[in-house]
Amino acid sequence: MKTDVEISQNAELLPISEIAAKIDIDDQDLEPYGHYKAKVSLNNVDDNLGKLVLVTSINPTAAGEGKTTLTVGLGDALTELGKNAVLALREPSIGPVMGMKGGATGGGYSQVIPMEDINLHFTGDFHALTEAHNTLAALIDNHIHHGNELNIDPRQIEWKRVLDVNDRELRQTVVGLGGRTSGVPRQDGFDITVASELMAILCLATDLNDLKERIANILIGYTYDREPVYVRDLKVQGALTLLLKDAIKPNLVQTIEHTPAFIHGGPFANIAHGCNSILATKAAMHYGDIALTEAGFGSDLGAEKFMDIVTPKLGKTPDCVVVVATIRALKLNGGMNKSELANEDLQALEKGAVNLYRHVQSMRQFGVPVVVTINKFGTDTDAEIELLSKLIGDNLGIQTYVSENFTQGGKGAIELANGVLEAIEQPSDFTSVYNADDELEIKINKVVKKIYGGARVELSGKAQTQLKRIKKLGYDKLPVCMAKTQYSFTDDPKN
Amino acid sequence: MKTDVEISQNAELLPISEIAAKIDIDDQDLEPYGHYKAKVSLNNVDDNLGKLVLVTSINPTAAGEGKTTLTVGLGDALTELGKNAVLALREPSIGPVMGMKGGATGGGYSQVIPMEDINLHFTGDFHALTEAHNTLAALIDNHIHHGNELNIDPRQIEWKRVLDVNDRELRQTVVGLGGRTSGVPRQDGFDITVASELMAILCLATDLNDLKERIANILIGYTYDREPVYVRDLKVQGALTLLLKDAIKPNLVQTIEHTPAFIHGGPFANIAHGCNSILATKAAMHYGDIALTEAGFGSDLGAEKFMDIVTPKLGKTPDCVVVVATIRALKLNGGMNKSELANEDLQALEKGAVNLYRHVQSMRQFGVPVVVTINKFGTDTDAEIELLSKLIGDNLGIQTYVSENFTQGGKGAIELANGVLEAIEQPSDFTSVYNADDELEIKINKVVKKIYGGARVELSGKAQTQLKRIKKLGYDKLPVCMAKTQYSFTDDPKN
Amino acid sequence: MKTDVEISQNAELLPISEIAAKIDIDDQDLEPYGHYKAKVSLNNVDDNLGKLVLVTSINPTAAGEGKTTLTVGLGDALTELGKNAVLALREPSIGPVMGMKGGATGGGYSQVIPMEDINLHFTGDFHALTEAHNTLAALIDNHIHHGNELNIDPRQIEWKRVLDVNDRELRQTVVGLGGRTSGVPRQDGFDITVASELMAILCLATDLNDLKERIANILIGYTYDREPVYVRDLKVQGALTLLLKDAIKPNLVQTIEHTPAFIHGGPFANIAHGCNSILATKAAMHYGDIALTEAGFGSDLGAEKFMDIVTPKLGKTPDCVVVVATIRALKLNGGMNKSELANEDLQALEKGAVNLYRHVQSMRQFGVPVVVTINKFGTDTDAEIELLSKLIGDNLGIQTYVSENFTQGGKGAIELANGVLEAIEQPSDFTSVYNADDELEIKINKVVKKIYGGARVELSGKAQTQLKRIKKLGYDKLPVCMAKTQYSFTDDPKN
Amino acid sequence: MKTDVEISQNAELLPISEIAAKIDIDDQDLEPYGHYKAKVSLNNVDDNLGKLVLVTSINPTAAGEGKTTLTVGLGDALTELGKNAVLALREPSIGPVMGMKGGATGGGYSQVIPMEDINLHFTGDFHALTEAHNTLAALIDNHIHHGNELNIDPRQIEWKRVLDVNDRELRQTVVGLGGRTSGVPRQDGFDITVASELMAILCLATDLNDLKERIANILIGYTYDREPVYVRDLKVQGALTLLLKDAIKPNLVQTIEHTPAFIHGGPFANIAHGCNSILATKAAMHYGDIALTEAGFGSDLGAEKFMDIVTPKLGKTPDCVVVVATIRALKLNGGMNKSELANEDLQALEKGAVNLYRHVQSMRQFGVPVVVTINKFGTDTDAEIELLSKLIGDNLGIQTYVSENFTQGGKGAIELANGVLEAIEQPSDFTSVYNADDELEIKINKVVKKIYGGARVELSGKAQTQLKRIKKLGYDKLPVCMAKTQYSFTDDPKN
Repeated sequence: MKTDVEISQNAELLPISEIAAKIDIDDQDLEPYGHYKAKVSLNNVDDNLGKLVLVTSINPTAAGEGKTTLTVGLGDALTELGKNAVLALREPSIGPVMGMKGGATGGGYSQVIPMEDINLHFTGDFHALTEAHNTLAALIDNHIHHGNELNIDPRQIEWKRVLDVNDRELRQTVVGLGGRTSGVPRQDGFDITVASELMAILCLATDLNDLKERIANILIGYTYDREPVYVRDLKVQGALTLLLKDAIKPNLVQTIEHTPAFIHGGPFANIAHGCNSILATKAAMHYGDIALTEAGFGSDLGAEKFMDIVTPKLGKTPDCVVVVATIRALKLNGGMNKSELANEDLQALEKGAVNLYRHVQSMRQFGVPVVVTINKFGTDTDAEIELLSKLIGDNLGIQTYVSENFTQGGKGAIELANGVLEAIEQPSDFTSVYNADDELEIKINKVVKKIYGGARVELSGKAQTQLKRIKKLGYDKLPVCMAKTQYSFTDDPKN
Repeated sequence: MKTDVEISQNAELLPISEIAAKIDIDDQDLEPYGHYKAKVSLNNVDDNLGKLVLVTSINPTAAGEGKTTLTVGLGDALTELGKNAVLALREPSIGPVMGMKGGATGGGYSQVIPMEDINLHFTGDFHALTEAHNTLAALIDNHIHHGNELNIDPRQIEWKRVLDVNDRELRQTVVGLGGRTSGVPRQDGFDITVASELMAILCLATDLNDLKERIANILIGYTYDREPVYVRDLKVQGALTLLLKDAIKPNLVQTIEHTPAFIHGGPFANIAHGCNSILATKAAMHYGDIALTEAGFGSDLGAEKFMDIVTPKLGKTPDCVVVVATIRALKLNGGMNKSELANEDLQALEKGAVNLYRHVQSMRQFGVPVVVTINKFGTDTDAEIELLSKLIGDNLGIQTYVSENFTQGGKGAIELANGVLEAIEQPSDFTSVYNADDELEIKINKVVKKIYGGARVELSGKAQTQLKRIKKLGYDKLPVCMAKTQYSFTDDPKN
Repeated sequence: MKTDVEISQNAELLPISEIAAKIDIDDQDLEPYGHYKAKVSLNNVDDNLGKLVLVTSINPTAAGEGKTTLTVGLGDALTELGKNAVLALREPSIGPVMGMKGGATGGGYSQVIPMEDINLHFTGDFHALTEAHNTLAALIDNHIHHGNELNIDPRQIEWKRVLDVNDRELRQTVVGLGGRTSGVPRQDGFDITVASELMAILCLATDLNDLKERIANILIGYTYDREPVYVRDLKVQGALTLLLKDAIKPNLVQTIEHTPAFIHGGPFANIAHGCNSILATKAAMHYGDIALTEAGFGSDLGAEKFMDIVTPKLGKTPDCVVVVATIRALKLNGGMNKSELANEDLQALEKGAVNLYRHVQSMRQFGVPVVVTINKFGTDTDAEIELLSKLIGDNLGIQTYVSENFTQGGKGAIELANGVLEAIEQPSDFTSVYNADDELEIKINKVVKKIYGGARVELSGKAQTQLKRIKKLGYDKLPVCMAKTQYSFTDDPKN
Repeated sequence: MKTDVEISQNAELLPISEIAAKIDIDDQDLEPYGHYKAKVSLNNVDDNLGKLVLVTSINPTAAGEGKTTLTVGLGDALTELGKNAVLALREPSIGPVMGMKGGATGGGYSQVIPMEDINLHFTGDFHALTEAHNTLAALIDNHIHHGNELNIDPRQIEWKRVLDVNDRELRQTVVGLGGRTSGVPRQDGFDITVASELMAILCLATDLNDLKERIANILIGYTYDREPVYVRDLKVQGALTLLLKDAIKPNLVQTIEHTPAFIHGGPFANIAHGCNSILATKAAMHYGDIALTEAGFGSDLGAEKFMDIVTPKLGKTPDCVVVVATIRALKLNGGMNKSELANEDLQALEKGAVNLYRHVQSMRQFGVPVVVTINKFGTDTDAEIELLSKLIGDNLGIQTYVSENFTQGGKGAIELANGVLEAIEQPSDFTSVYNADDELEIKINKVVKKIYGGARVELSGKAQTQLKRIKKLGYDKLPVCMAKTQYSFTDDPKN
C-alpha cells in the first residue's frame, strides 16, 4: 500500500470553489487562499442546523487510534450514501510537523487535503494567534517599562510568550536584559502556540464581538498588592481582536473523496478543551445535513469537555456519539507488551476490553445514542475481531461496526455509516455531568466520579488554595477544564 | 481633506482577478488570498522585460519624504496616460504598525489597497519568515542538546531569534533554563523579523533553488575551535525552504486607481539592502511595459544598494532614476528648526538644496538619466517652489517636476510621468560603483568617496579584524552592504 | 533588668591566656586572636576524656527555649561548685546577625563573651569556609571552561556557591554570562555559608587528614552521561584543605563567669546535623572534667543526630542528657494563642506537657540518664511551675529542676547542676536508633517510629528514586540525616 | 639557589611580640593573631613622624620588576646599617594566589613572613571587606524588595557584589530569580574583592569616623528618575563600618631579617589608587625613623596617584623616591623579544633606557630627590650593567645603585641604602601635578601631559557626558584616579 504522503500527493483536488458550491456557500462568503483552501464568512449562519455526530475513542496509545481517519472515512461513507455530510476538524500545529509527530489530517485513503498546506502555514490562523499573543506580551512589558501605572508585579505575570515551534530552549527564559532602555528584567517562557489561551478563546468564541469580550477578560497577572490585572485594564482588546479578524473564520478544504471539511482551531485536550472551533462546527451543521466532529484524546478528556464546555456555547448537543477502538490498544490495555502487539492474544484483548466498556458507559450517561466501531489494522486477526464483537454485544448490548476505511476509503465505513444514520434518528435526552451552579469542588468530584470512575477527589493544600483564589476571582461558575494524562482514566499514564 | 485611512476605506476595490487580467496573468499562476490580494507564480517569466524606473530620494527627515506616495502617483499617472505601468514595492512589517510608525502603503490619493490587510498579516510572508527563522534557531539548539556533534559553541551562535513584534523586552535574553531537559543555557536575543537574514535572502533569491542554496550557506555560528558552522552542516536547508515555498511568490494588489502593484519583501536599507524582492521587480517588468520600484531611505543607502547589490542579480539596470525631494526636508537640511518648517525660508532652502545636488550627482555617476521631482506639501510657498526649480536648473541643468499626486492622485503627477517617459528613452550606460573583484577595503572606499562624498575610510582596529575574518571566510568577493544612519551622508545623523 | 547587650558589654573579660591557663592549655597550642579569643591546636588530645553532658529541648517556639542560655548557666553553676566544666557550643552565622535573628551566645547573665566579636567575624572560620566553598565552585566552572575533560554537565552541578549574608537576591541566579571569555552560562544559586557541605564536613572531621579525605569525596555533580563527579576527580582537595587549616581548630572564649567555652562550627539541625564540631567537644572533654554541649532545635532533630551521627565519630556517648522545657512553649503546644502566653493557663500547660513526655521518652531509648529542667521565665506563675513539676513526677517519675540562671547567672542553676552531677555517675547503656548496616528505608523508618512517634514512612515515587540513586552511589551504609521542620514531631509546623 | 617557598619556610620567625617590642608598640595596642601576626591599634599615632621613602619603578613587564623585593631588601639593608626602618606594603589578594599569579610578599632573601598566612586569609581584612560589600548589596536589594521607598531603578544599580576568588563565571550574572519571594530579577556581576570601592575607601580613611563618612557617601545607583542614591539614604553606614572595625587596623609582620613590616590594604593601581593604607604608612612613619612604602605598577600609575591622591590625606610627602629598573625590562622596551631576554643586547638596552629616563623625569617634577637602582638578575651581563650606569649618568646626571638583595638579602642593598640615606637629607620642595580646584578636564590633561608625555587629551562623546555627570554630582573637586594599562605610558599595552 502507498504511504499517506503518496496517497495525498496523488489525490485529485477539486477547486475549492466547486466544493463550496456543493454546499451552497455564497461567493461573497468564500475567501479563497490559493486554489484549494478558503476561509468562509459566517454572515448567514442561522439556527437551521443539521444533525451532529461526535467521534471519540478509548484511551489512546502513543501512536493514536485513528480517530481523525475514522471521522474522515465516516464522512466519505455518508457522502457515498448520498448524504450531505460536512466535517469539522482541528487544525494541526506546525510545531509537531517539524518535530516528531506527523500531521493531523487523517491517514491512508481517509485524508483531508492539500495535506502539506494544511500541515504548514495553512491560512495563517496559528501565525495570527502567535502575533496577537506576543503583541499582548509586548504591550504588558511596555506598560511596565513606561511607568507601570497599573502597578503590575513583573514576577507575577501569567501571560507568557508563544511560538508555533517545538523549542525546548525557550521554555524558561530571562528577558528584559540589556539595561535601562531594554525593558524590565524578569523570568518568562515560551509555550507552543496551540497552548495559548487565545487559541482556547478563539475556539469558544461565537463571533468577533464575543472574541473581543473574552480577550478583554484575560487575566494577565497580578499587581504588587496581589490584585488581578486584565487585558481590559490595558485597553488593548480592540487591537488584539483586529489581529484575529481573519483567524476567526473557519477554513474550508476537502477530503480525498471531496467531502467538504472545515478545519479550524486546535487546542490540546490534555491541557485545554481539545475541540475544533465552535464556528467550524456550526458551519458544518449549517452547510451540511450531517456534521461530524471529533474531540481530542479519549472520551474521558475530549468528549467530556465537548459535552460540558462546548455544547453550552454551541447551542446544540450531539445526536450520536461514535466511540473508536482498536484491537491493538485494547490488547495493550490488557497488559500486552507494546513490541508484541502484532501477535494474536485473545486473553489480553478480553482483559483490555474493560477500558472500552467504561468509555461507552461514560458516554451513555450523557443520554445520547452511542455507536462503537473497530478501526481495523492489518494485524488484527479474525478471531480477535470476532471475540471483541461478541464481548461488546454481551457487555454493552450493541452491534459492533468494523471500519476499513484506512485501506478502502469511504467504502470501508459504509456499515458504520448506516449504523450512525440509524442512531441519529433515535430519541436523545442530553444531561451534562455537572451544573454551572455547582461549587467548583462538586464539579470536579462529579467529573472524577462519573467519567474517570474515581471514588472521590482528595485536594492537596496547594489545590485548595488555588480553588479559593479562583473563587475569589469570581470564576467559580465557569465549567471546569481538567488537565490530566491522556493515557489512562487515572493520573498515572501507566495505570 | 480626508485622512489616509478614510481615503483608503472609501476606495473602490476591483476583484484581484480583474487586476490580474489587465496584465495578462494566467489564471493558473494567480493564487487569490481573499478577494483583493493574490500571490503570483512566476513560472512564465522570461527575459522579455519592460522598462525599469527607480525612485529614490534625498536624505529623509523623520517623517519620510513620500517616496512611496510619489511612486504610486507616478504609476497612476502613467496608467492615466494609457501606459501599462506596474509597481514593485516593499511589504510593511506588522511590528511598526502596532508600534509608533504608520504603515508603508503610500498616502493621500496615492495608496495601495486594501491598506489594512497589507499592513496586518497580508499573505503571511513575514509569518513564514518568522517561522522558518525560529525553526532554524530551534534546530541549532536541538543539535547542541542532543550531543552537539558539530561542536557548536553556545556562546558563539550568531543566529538569534525573531518576532514580527516591536518588543524591547526580548532584545537580550537568557534561554535554555530549567535543567537537563530544557536545552542549553545561553545568551540570546530577538530581532524584528524584517531584520532576519532570511528576509534579505528571500529578496535576493531568483528562484526556489537559489533560495535553498542561499539558506544552506547561512553562517550560524562557530565551533569551540572558532571554525564556522553553516546551515548546510545541519542539513536542514530543505525543510527551511519548504517553509518559504509560498512566501517567495510576489503578492499582487492594486492602487486606488487600479494600477497593479507587486508588494513583496521588505528589508531595511540602513542595516540591509532595502529593496523589495528581485522576483517582484522582475514580475513588474514582465507583466508591465514600465516597472516602477523604489529603494529605501536616501539615494546614498537604498539606491546605491539597488545599483550595486540588486541589479547584478536582477539582470537589468534602471532606465531612469527619479529623485524625490521636499521643500521641507531641504529647509531642514539648510538649518531650519523642525518646528518652524511651515514658514517660508528661502535662505534655508537654498542652503539645503546642496543636499539634493549631491544625491543627483551620485546617481548620475551610474550613467542613467536622472529626473528630479518636488513632492509638494500644503505649506510650500510659490516663491519656494520657484526658487528651488531655478536652483535645480542652474546647478543641475535640468527641469524640475512638481508632483501633487498626494492631493490629486495620478492626475497630479502627469508632468512628471511625461518627463519620465522621455527619460527612459534616452541612451544609458550603466557603471557600478565598484567591481566584484575589488578588495573589500577598496569597495568600501569607493562607496564612501563616490556616494557619501568622503575623503577616505579610516578603519578601526576592530573593523580591520572583522575584514580579515570576512576574507578568511571567503566572503571578500561579495558586494558590500553598508550600515549607516539614514539621516545624512555621514555617520552622524545630525550632520 | 539590663539588656543582653548591656550585660555583655559590662562584663569583665579575663585575658584569654588566663582562661587557657586554668585548664592547662599549653602556650604552644594557644593561638590568640586579639586579647580575648584564641584558637587551640589539638596536638595533645588523647583518649583521657571527661564526662559528657548533652543539652537538648522540647520542640522550640519561634523565640527559642533558651537552650544555649541554660547550657552556659549549667556550666557556670558547675564552676561555682568547684568543678572543672568546659563548654562546647556552636558558632553563630554573621548572616542572621545582620538579618532578623539575634546572635547565639546565650542571654541574660548566662552569656559567652566577647559577644560582638563572636557574632561578627570571630576568628574567621565562616569566612574560610566561604572562601574554600567558592574556590571549589570557581574551579569546577574553570574546568568546564577549559575543555571540560571530565565531561561535567553544567546543568547537573550540585555544588552551588555560598555567602555568609542573608541574601534572598542570590538564591537563584544565572551565571557565566558575557560571552566566550566569561565562562559557561548556567543556572546557579547561593546558600548561606552554614548550609555548606564543608561546614558539616568540618564539624565531623577528626583531624586535618580526615577533613581532606572528606573533601575529596564530595559529590560535585554529574557528567552528561549521568555519572557522578567528585572533588577528587578535580584533584583539588589539597588546596581546599589548606584554606581550612586554621578553621579546623576550635576557638576558645569564656562565659561572663569565666567558664572556658569552645565555640566552633555551626551547621543547622533542620537541614544538617546541628551540632558543634567534634573537635570542640573533644577539646572540652580533654581539658575539662565535665564537658557540656548542646544539639540544635528539639531532641527529635539535634539530639537524635548527635546520638546517631556524631557519637560514632566522637568516640564517646553522653553520660547524661538534659532536656530543657519552658512553660510558655508547653502552653503553646497545648493550644494557647501566642499573644496570650503571658497569662496563666493550667489546662493548656497540662495538655502541652505531653510534648515534653515524648521528648524525654525518646531520649531514654538511648539508654542514658535524662534530667529535665524548666528554664524559668518572668511570666511563669508558681501554680504553673508546681503543676508541671507534679506532672513530670507523675508521668516520668523524676524530679524537675527549675533554672533561673538567666536572671541570676550560675547561682540560678545550682540545683540543676547537682542533679546533673548525680546523673552522670549513674550507669548508662547506650543504644543507637539504627544500625549502620540497616537498609536506608529501615533506618528512616526506625527514626520515624522511635523518635517522631510515627506509624511508618510512606515514600513518594520521587523519594524512592532518590533512595535508589543514593544506594547506587554507595551511600547506603551511612547514617541518615533527616531534614524536617523544627516546630513539631511531624512534617507540619503547626501540628 | 632555593625557591622562594623554601627560603620562606626555612626562615626563623621571631614572636610578633618581640618585633613589636623593637619599635615600642604598646602591649595594649598589639592584638596578636596567632604567634607571628598582629593587628596594631593606632590610638597613639601623633604627628611626630619619621622620614618617608617611596619605591616605584619603570613600566613593568608581565613578570614584575621586583619592586616589593627591592623595598624589603632596602628595609633590611637599613636595619643592617642600624637604622630603625619600618615597611608599609600592600596586602595580597587570595584570589590571585589560587589563580595564576604568585603572592606579593617579595622574593628570594627579601621576603615578608609568614608567607603562607599572609597569602591566605591573613588577619581576615579581605574577608571583612567581602562581607561588608555583599551586606550592602543585600541591603540594597532588600530595600527594593520591600517596597522600594527610595525608588531605586534595579537596572541602574552601580554597586555590584564581590568575592576574593578569581571567578570568571560570576563576572556577569542575573540575580533575583525564583519568583515573588526571591528578590527582584536584575543583571548583576561580581568583582574581585580588591576592586571593591570599600577597599579604596579603607586605604584612604584616616580613622573609623572618616571611614564611616566615606561609606555614607558611596553612590550605589540611581532612581528611576536618574537621581543618585547614596549609602546614607539607606542609613546603613554604621552597620557596615562595624563590620570593618578590625579590618581598618594595620597588620604587623616581619621580614626574614626581622625588619618590622605593616602590610595593609591592596587596591590595584591600574583601576584604583594602588597603594597600601594610609594608616599603615602612618604607622610605619610613627614607629620607624625611616618608613618605606611602594606604589603599584610603574611611576605613571602608582607613584602619580601616591603623590596626588594619597599624600594630601597622609599629611606627609616623600623625602625620596626610588625608581627600580631591570635590564630585562629595558631591553624589552628596546624592542627585544621576550624569549631572548637572557641574551646580551646593548643596543636594545640603550634604546629601552629611554623609558627609564622618562619615569625619572616624571618623578623629578614633584620636587623630590630621585634615586635609581638596578634590580640585578642572574642573566644581566657586566657590560649591560656598565652601559646602563653610564647612560643614567649621562642622561640623568646621577649615580646608579645595583641591588643584589634577591640573592644576598639586606647586605645586597647596602649601597642603595646609603644612597637613600643621603637623598632623604636633601632639601625637597613638593609640587603636585594639578590643583584640587582645577576643572576635571584640566586635571586629566595635566596628568597626561606631565606624566604620560602626551600632547593633550581628546575626550570621546561618551567621556564628555560622563564628565558632565560627575560634575553634576559634585565630584569635580576630587583628585582624578586614572585607569590605564600598566604596560606603557600610552593606552596601548604594546606601545
